[in-house]
Parts: sequence; C-alpha cells; structure tokens
Amino acid sequence: MPTSDLAAKLFLALDQATRQGRGIQRDTYGAGEQAAHDIIRQSAETLGLECAVDAIGNLTMTMPGHDRTQPRIVIGSHLDSVPQGGNFDGAAGVVAGLCAIARLRADNVVPPWDIAVMGIRGEESAWFDVPYLGSAGAFGLLDPKCLEVRRFDTQRSLADTMTAGGFDAGAIRERRRLLDPVSVRAYLEVHIEQGPELIGEGLPVAVVTGIRGCLRFRNARCVGAYAHSGAVPRRHRQDAVAATVALLHHMNEYWARIEARGDDLVLTSGEFFTDAAMHGPSKVAGETRFVLDIRSTADAVMEAAASEARVAAERFEEQFRVRFDLGATSYSPPAMMDARLRQTLLNLSDHPYEMASGAGHDAAIFAQMKIPSAMIFIRNANGSHNPDEAMALDDFDAAVMLLTRLLKSSCSAAVA
Amino acid sequence: MPTSDLAAKLFLALDQATRQGRGIQRDTYGAGEQAAHDIIRQSAETLGLECAVDAIGNLTMTMPGHDRTQPRIVIGSHLDSVPQGGNFDGAAGVVAGLCAIARLRADNVVPPWDIAVMGIRGEESAWFDVPYLGSAGAFGLLDPKCLEVRRFDTQRSLADTMTAGGFDAGAIRERRRLLDPVSVRAYLEVHIEQGPELIGEGLPVAVVTGIRGCLRFRNARCVGAYAHSGAVPRRHRQDAVAATVALLHHMNEYWARIEARGDDLVLTSGEFFTDAAMHGPSKVAGETRFVLDIRSTADAVMEAAASEARVAAERFEEQFRVRFDLGATSYSPPAMMDARLRQTLLNLSDHPYEMASGAGHDAAIFAQMKIPSAMIFIRNANGSHNPDEAMALDDFDAAVMLLTRLLKSSCSAAVA
Repeated sequence: MPTSDLAAKLFLALDQATRQGRGIQRDTYGAGEQAAHDIIRQSAETLGLECAVDAIGNLTMTMPGHDRTQPRIVIGSHLDSVPQGGNFDGAAGVVAGLCAIARLRADNVVPPWDIAVMGIRGEESAWFDVPYLGSAGAFGLLDPKCLEVRRFDTQRSLADTMTAGGFDAGAIRERRRLLDPVSVRAYLEVHIEQGPELIGEGLPVAVVTGIRGCLRFRNARCVGAYAHSGAVPRRHRQDAVAATVALLHHMNEYWARIEARGDDLVLTSGEFFTDAAMHGPSKVAGETRFVLDIRSTADAVMEAAASEARVAAERFEEQFRVRFDLGATSYSPPAMMDARLRQTLLNLSDHPYEMASGAGHDAAIFAQMKIPSAMIFIRNANGSHNPDEAMALDDFDAAVMLLTRLLKSSCSAAVA
Repeated sequence: MPTSDLAAKLFLALDQATRQGRGIQRDTYGAGEQAAHDIIRQSAETLGLECAVDAIGNLTMTMPGHDRTQPRIVIGSHLDSVPQGGNFDGAAGVVAGLCAIARLRADNVVPPWDIAVMGIRGEESAWFDVPYLGSAGAFGLLDPKCLEVRRFDTQRSLADTMTAGGFDAGAIRERRRLLDPVSVRAYLEVHIEQGPELIGEGLPVAVVTGIRGCLRFRNARCVGAYAHSGAVPRRHRQDAVAATVALLHHMNEYWARIEARGDDLVLTSGEFFTDAAMHGPSKVAGETRFVLDIRSTADAVMEAAASEARVAAERFEEQFRVRFDLGATSYSPPAMMDARLRQTLLNLSDHPYEMASGAGHDAAIFAQMKIPSAMIFIRNANGSHNPDEAMALDDFDAAVMLLTRLLKSSCSAAVA
C-alpha cells in the first residue's frame, strides 16, 4: 500500500472510532485514547514492527536496526486529543512515523540502529490539568501528587483512571524511569501547526526552531478611582482603563521593536475587563483586570519583556495616578530544538523554512532530557484544539517525505 | 440670624430628616423629597417669602420686587437626591437661594422685580430613569409616556407616585406649561462641583461655562478571531484587544491635542471587556465590547471626536485585520450658560475661574428655553451621588456671596 493510502486509511479509522458529535474525543487514559492506540498498534503489527507498552501505557513500535545495542531514534507524538478536538493534533505525528517506516521498508532500508515510533499517552492537559503525562512519566519526571488530580468531567482521579485502564499508577508514584534517555539518540516529532503561519507563507511544512516558553502575568490589575465621566478632567483622573490601555499599547510597540531586531517574542493580553458590578457608561473606571502572556524561545527575551512591563507600569502609575499590581508570574521554560538536526532538516527541505512553536509538545520533555530533538510542522487551517483542524494529505506527505529523508540521511551518515 | 447660621441650620435639618443609614434618601416624589420641601418651605415662610406649589410639586418662594409685572429672577435647584446620596447635591442650591435673599433682606435691598427661589422636583433620574421631571415638567416639555415609567424599587408608576403625593399627573399628560419662560428674566443655579477640579485649583467657587452634552458609543464592539496566544504571530493575528487598545490609545492622544488647542472635551471608556465565556489566558481575544463616552460644551467638538473615532477604527480594522462595530450613538445636547451673566459673575469673583459642568443640571432646561442662565459651582470633596459629599460651609458662603453680588448688581443695573 502506498504510504499516502496508509495515512488516509489510518486517519479515517481514527476519525470513525473517536468522533463524538462534531469533534474528536480521545480522552487521556480513557476509551477514546485507547481506541487510537488499538488502531495504531494493529497497523504497526501489519508492518511487522515490534510492539511494546510500558507501565503507563506508552506504545513503542520498533523497526529493528543492524545493531540493536545502539541507542535508537524515536519518532513520537501523542494519541490523545482535547475534548471536541480535531483528528490531527497529536495523531498525525504517530501516523507520520509509521508512514516513514513503511517507506524505509519499501526501499529495503535496514537502519544501522533501531527506529521506534512512540504513541505517547496524555500530552493534553485538558482532561487532568497536567500536561506531558506520557513523556514526562516515561522519564520519571512527574510529581506523584498529579495522581490525585481529578479528570474535569468524571471527577475520577488520575490514579483510579489509570488503574481502570489497566496501567500502573505506581510507576508515577515511585517516579520510575521507564525510558533511559541514554538509549535515545534523537527524538523526532511531526505535528500540525497550531497557527496560520504556513498558510500565510504558502508552504506545506516548516522546521521548528524551538518551543516557546511562557512567562505570564496571570492576574494583573490596575486600580484607579471611579468617577463621573463628565465631571472629572484629565489631569485629575485616576482612569484604570486609560492607564491599562497605555501599558498594553506600550508593550505592543515594544514587541514590534523586539521583532524588528529579530528576536522571537509573542505578547498577548487575551483577558481584559472592567468590573461589571462597578463600571458604567458614564463612569471613569476605577479598576481593570488583565492578563499579559509573554512567550519566546529564549528565557532572556521573556525576562526582558516582563521587566519592560514592570518599568512601564511604574511610569504609567505616576502619569495616570493609578496603581498597577502585575501580580505573580507563572512560568514554563522554552526548549530549543537541536541545532544540527535543524540544519540537516533545512538542507533536506524543498522550501527551507523555520518557525517557532508557540504551543508545548512532548519534544520539550525530550529536549529537557538532553536528547537531540527536532520537530516538523505541517500546514493546517483553522488552528488546533477544535473540530475544524484541516490538514491536507499532500502537506502530510511532504512532512513524511522530509522525515524519511532525515532517517535515510542518518542511516547513510552512520554507514559512511 | 447670620446667613451661615441659616445654612448650617438648614443643612442639619435636611440631614436629620432624610439620612437613612449612611446616605441621604430624598426619593423623587417620595417621602424623602417631601421632607426636604417641608423644611425649605418653613424656612422661606420665616423669611417672609410668598410660597406657592405648582401642579407637579415645584415650590416657588418669592421675594417681591418693586414692579411685580416685570419678569423675575429665578434661583433654582432640586431637592431630591439619588439613593444613598449626599446632603448637598441639589439642596445646596436651594439653601444658597434662601441665604442670598436673607442677605438682601438684611441689607434692606428691595429688588426692582421679584426674585424667586425654586425648589425643583425630581431632577435625578435614579428613581424613575427620567431626568429633569420638575423643570422640564414646568415648561410642558415632558413626554407623557414618562408617567408609565416605574420607580426602580417600588415598581410604582410615576403617575401613581405623583397622585399618592398629592400632585397632578394630568399636567404632564396634557403637557401643560406651568411656567412661562417669558416670565423669567434669568435663571441662576448654585451646585456642588461633582469632580475634584476646584480642590485641585485651590478655589472655593467657579463660574460654569456650560453643561457638557454627551455623544456616546454605548455598545461598541471589536470582532477579531480567537487563536492560540503562542502559535499565531503578529502579522497573522486578528487580536480584538490589541486593536481596541490601539483605538483607545489613539483617542486619548487625540483628546490631549484637542485640549491643548483649548477646546472643551472629555473622553472616557468606562466599560471594556473581553467575553468571559470565550476568553482565556493563552488565547488571543476574538472580541471586545467597550463604551466610548464623548462630552463637550460644544456639539462640533463632540462630532469631530466621534468622526475621529470612526476614521481611526477603520484604519485599525485594516492594520489589525479586525472589524469594529461602534454601533449607534446616544446624544444629549450641550447647554451653554449666558455669556453676559458669566462675564458679570467673573467680574464679581474674588478669584475668577471658569469651568465646564460634566453632569446635567436643571439649568440645561432653562437654557434650552432661551432663558439666560448661569451656574456657580462650589468646591466639594469625594464627588457627588454618594454619602461622602463634603462641602465646607466657608466655600458655600463664598458661593452665596457671589450670588448676592450678582443679584445686587442686577438690581443696581436696573436702577441705573
């Protein structure tokens, strides 16, 4: 079967087994995720791959290499989805791994070391509010307290849900290392892009530079004083909306400057509101609450932006006679992809294009374990985490082609 | 009794009769407003003024002049308050009128024409959601439909409430003119300032230039597209918050320019919110709703600002790939105070200072009837429409002094 037929068959089977209403439902450690694992495992067995499931349910499907004692290449992605998600976020990476191996098989390539495709459990935090259960769990990185977290809808704890699925919560409780990072020479992940950049660029695939970290003022506030909108002149106002507008406008201009300098940065205020119980059309607002979400592939860039926000807030406090309380920051670290793998992928690309990943991926965990990691993004319309994800099979094939080239190049490099 | 003693006595009596809990409660056409009318009428009778109540309850207290056929001067203000209001918003103007007449009496002045103090009914829209019931009603200007409006708390209609108070709702139903504008040569109103401007200036009183009108985008909206805050770069975003911030920032800068030019303008966005059901800390916001409240003493200035907002919104639509729907505007006209009376008041002031009124006052109705009208503002801490209104008696005396000078000057001008 040509690989594009294999992909079409697998995407159809996954869709049919896990669509509920408009969206895809592959619940972490639930029936939906298991259905996807079953479909993928059956296909891997048909391809003649060695299949194994670890204590916490990660599925590893291995094409044996010449020297089985050598560290292997892992091609991974997750098989769960958010509630009412789309068919491609996660699953496309696993299907891409199988398709690449099918191509190697078709070309009679026997790799110098094992190549494994990994169907990773529970990457989405939507169900248990803990991301990377499968990948972080495999490396023994999870805080055992996460076992008490309850699934948002069933209210069943992660421990109970895992046990019910036939998995061993004890592995997480004892922080057992199920996968030795030394045994992995490289981690490769194919994923649909979650934004519109490749559509804008007119390109089917991109090489990922890194996964952006996030430094977030989650609970920022500006406190001024409520007043009559007609009766209080500018120089006497303590207008919380005007001050917050000035701060966010300043940060938008700062962003443009940093971007022009070539640094990776995205800034978002996705929540901004006056107090519905106190505000009014003829009142100066005495309070705002807002979020300032700062993301970059570089810690230093995020820290500089946070510091810029703090300094600007202080200046605007004086100018607008208000008080800013930016509050505590939440933080997730950025993860750079391996420079050598990135360069190789660019060299192998028909239309070399690099971009950062704004969302988190299992590759961040592998990179954190010092495993050289790389990602390929596939063009995708309508964003992800919704039923309208739209990846064209031709674009998927371009990603499989690039992945296969990388695998072949690493094989020949080893031979040479 | 010295006039400051009269004022202190009246403010104390009003406070004792109408304070409920922390605030003042002089409900329009209710027991609280009536209690204030009773106290004021008794004081006027003690001063020997002729007292009359019109069909809708306005109390007129007249000091007879030499020629009673001449049009009279009316010194007016309202005696109702908002729920949990303060002791001075409204009542101070009526007390000031009585105090000024007491001074004329003490100085043995007999004016060339009648001088009347008017205790006006129902200026506040807080109870029936209709402002200026007493003054607009006296000129037959009210839409009879307002009689069906129900008081926000008792749910009793205005018609029923008036009837229960012993007044004639028929006068409003038939648009009866109870006061002939030709019979009023001038309308004078003393009122506490509802903002902090005089405190900032360190002055006890100001002459009012005019009452600001209001042109308001009550239901403005910006529609973009929700997206992942990390995964969508700047050039592909349709960020409703960023676009709204740009628009409001632009309007704040526009305001500064107009103010520097010397035109009267205030701009406020007192409501601004993303959709709580859709927004999120890691989402680009796809929608905002906001108010843009534009006030000026000049229609042309308000219209120019509204037009600036429309043009800027169009420009930012393109820049941010969003759609602005500023929606319909609500409008209340500005009312300029009489230029000759303003100049006379400034000439008579110890520290001449002019300022606009941001809030509406009965003087707007008299000005609308082409009656030369003037207002004096008294310094007041903590704004109005709350229990913490704080007017010093010395500042009140400064206003009474200025009002008395104006009355005397008009008397001598008539003699000369």
